[in-house]
Amino acid sequence: MAISLNPPERLIPVSGIRLATAAAGLRYKDRDDLVLMELSEPARTAALFTTNRFCAAPVVVARQHLAAVQPRYLLINAGNANAGLGAQGLADAQQCCAALARACGCQENEILPFSTGVIGERLPVEKITAHYTRLAQALGEDAWLAAAQAIMTTDTVCKGLSRQVELDGQTVTMTGIAKGAGMIRPDMATMLAFVATDLEADPEELEQLSRQAVRQSFHCITVDGDTSTNDACVLVATARSGARFSALSPQARADFSEALNSLYLSLAQAIVRDGEGITKFVCVRIEQARSEAEAREIAFSIAHSPLVKTSAFASDPNWGRIVAAAARTPHGGLEMDRLSLHINTVPVIENGQPAPGYTEAAGVRAMQGDELEYRLQLGLGTASARIWTTDLSHEYVKINAEYRT
Amino acid sequence: MAISLNPPERLIPVSGIRLATAAAGLRYKDRDDLVLMELSEPARTAALFTTNRFCAAPVVVARQHLAAVQPRYLLINAGNANAGLGAQGLADAQQCCAALARACGCQENEILPFSTGVIGERLPVEKITAHYTRLAQALGEDAWLAAAQAIMTTDTVCKGLSRQVELDGQTVTMTGIAKGAGMIRPDMATMLAFVATDLEADPEELEQLSRQAVRQSFHCITVDGDTSTNDACVLVATARSGARFSALSPQARADFSEALNSLYLSLAQAIVRDGEGITKFVCVRIEQARSEAEAREIAFSIAHSPLVKTSAFASDPNWGRIVAAAARTPHGGLEMDRLSLHINTVPVIENGQPAPGYTEAAGVRAMQGDELEYRLQLGLGTASARIWTTDLSHEYVKINAEYRT
Repeated sequence: MAISLNPPERLIPVSGIRLATAAAGLRYKDRDDLVLMELSEPARTAALFTTNRFCAAPVVVARQHLAAVQPRYLLINAGNANAGLGAQGLADAQQCCAALARACGCQENEILPFSTGVIGERLPVEKITAHYTRLAQALGEDAWLAAAQAIMTTDTVCKGLSRQVELDGQTVTMTGIAKGAGMIRPDMATMLAFVATDLEADPEELEQLSRQAVRQSFHCITVDGDTSTNDACVLVATARSGARFSALSPQARADFSEALNSLYLSLAQAIVRDGEGITKFVCVRIEQARSEAEAREIAFSIAHSPLVKTSAFASDPNWGRIVAAAARTPHGGLEMDRLSLHINTVPVIENGQPAPGYTEAAGVRAMQGDELEYRLQLGLGTASARIWTTDLSHEYVKINAEYRT
Repeated sequence: MAISLNPPERLIPVSGIRLATAAAGLRYKDRDDLVLMELSEPARTAALFTTNRFCAAPVVVARQHLAAVQPRYLLINAGNANAGLGAQGLADAQQCCAALARACGCQENEILPFSTGVIGERLPVEKITAHYTRLAQALGEDAWLAAAQAIMTTDTVCKGLSRQVELDGQTVTMTGIAKGAGMIRPDMATMLAFVATDLEADPEELEQLSRQAVRQSFHCITVDGDTSTNDACVLVATARSGARFSALSPQARADFSEALNSLYLSLAQAIVRDGEGITKFVCVRIEQARSEAEAREIAFSIAHSPLVKTSAFASDPNWGRIVAAAARTPHGGLEMDRLSLHINTVPVIENGQPAPGYTEAAGVRAMQGDELEYRLQLGLGTASARIWTTDLSHEYVKINAEYRT
């Protein structure tokens, strides 16, 4: 059950973007699993992809195409990752693009393909290409919600968000959709996220906005520590609002950046809130570290510990596991007698020892809700980091043991 | 259920070592949980401890004592780790040693304390010291099996092994006991292991024998990636056999080393075979790496992947998860088109693509047994590594969610 996560009621169209969905029957019955997204001239696109070297065929193809030319179409399927299939996988991804280029009258490399789903099963190309004519005819500005639903795999709630900001008197819209929900430890971005804005921005500006937004959002979440083969996060600027990033006032630029970052963070957190088998949404917050890298390393060590995660599942304030996970990182400098830990607002450890007045009962009460914060203060410096993660439940094991059956 | 692991029927006494056990009621009812081990002059001892900076009070005290003088007694309790208690924990460990020194007529620093169990609860010192007189009177050479049973926590099978080797015509005995079964990712050794031999060896020789044996055994196992706060591995040489290491022939030294290494490896594997919630005993074997460090990093990345572990639990030949886990390590050099994977003897991937003739049915058959080997050949060099681990089952979550309740 997703934690405090509702599907969006409506997503605001972004001028310059049209979408269509179809049910190709790749894996799921009675639902859409295919999305075509059209980006009209002069839209500019930035994208970040998985750092996993075992990256999927569509990631290889999308990287090549993006390096050559600005994309005009995004083609997204759910249910099959087209990963781990070598030359065959590449040929299948290219064939999907070539056929779409013919159907839409564009160049093959103006199409970016994205796939998410089971690894190692061949992509049923004909099931996809059969829908091209109908998809091209059905393109419309108001299909964001349908697209958010069509890209789901083990997600239980569809994820999308819109924001509008006033920038120097002009209204700029941004809308994004994303999907999880396992193999989530983005070393760049989660499985798939697509964000569009009607701002105008140069490719370099867009690249920088995208990296900055990803850094504090998708780079700060983990479900199971497994970086996916298909991660991709795409940011499109359609230039239709009349607002141009480079012409904005410093304040308006900051406002746009803040709105974009907050939209990315909400999407990233939505993926965690709907993480496989989740019963607790956990924020691991490290403060007083010597560097952000140290803070992040310690936070991830806690967030990935199966013992910390099962304690969270059991609502057990087993702080020994939290501190032990923090202290096993390669960083040599942790000083136990400077360490403090809060679970939500309850002080648990102070200067390396049980906090005065701390009782097990207080700890148990702090663990009851479905949102937890572990705040670890190292007493070593001024850097900090926050990482969002899930607990580890019976349901996680069940979902992942039965994924392919 | 432990995988192909039976308790030892008998452990061979090691001349110069006497043991006694008692039921102190620290956590468990109706079983022994306290061990006293006497090491007679001129026994020499080497010990390796956890690299976790949040190490338990007994580890701090044992390190100090061992640095000062050769130990005469080991005091081991199960059920309470005496970890995470700051100055109080240190005082409690010291008090246990001081009282035992009085009872046994030795110096306080001739005692090494060891604790294993729950973190963060105060050690009930009086419950322990109350048994000293009786323990000292009950010391005997034949209590190794009782000691192996007394140090168990979540272990379901007690772990011990004896070996005898002929070295230049003299019989040398070695007997070891160990316990697991969770928070196992030794960055030195697992929770607790105690090995004794009647060989005579200098402290430096012993240290080297111990490090070498640990390196290819306890350093090569993982259950959940969580390095414990209380890990300790102790090797005692009692010098009672008449065989002296430095006087042995090169062949006899090699024979001793091989027997010791094999004893350590069996104990380490026994801990994995009895890992919490285990249903599959998994060997991750990396070959053709550029360095052992690279091979180990990749092996651990696979061994720690919750997705790989849940696939093993489900007997699902989900090779995509194995390759994806291998490919997410920081090592930049993995080349997918050189990669081959076998599950047991079944070729699954060849040169980065599904092996000719591989069928899902063949993969499923290979996954049926309760012992699995994933053999990944990188095609990059000649280094290799083997890591032993468990699957991730419903039972693991249950055990660790309910550990303190």
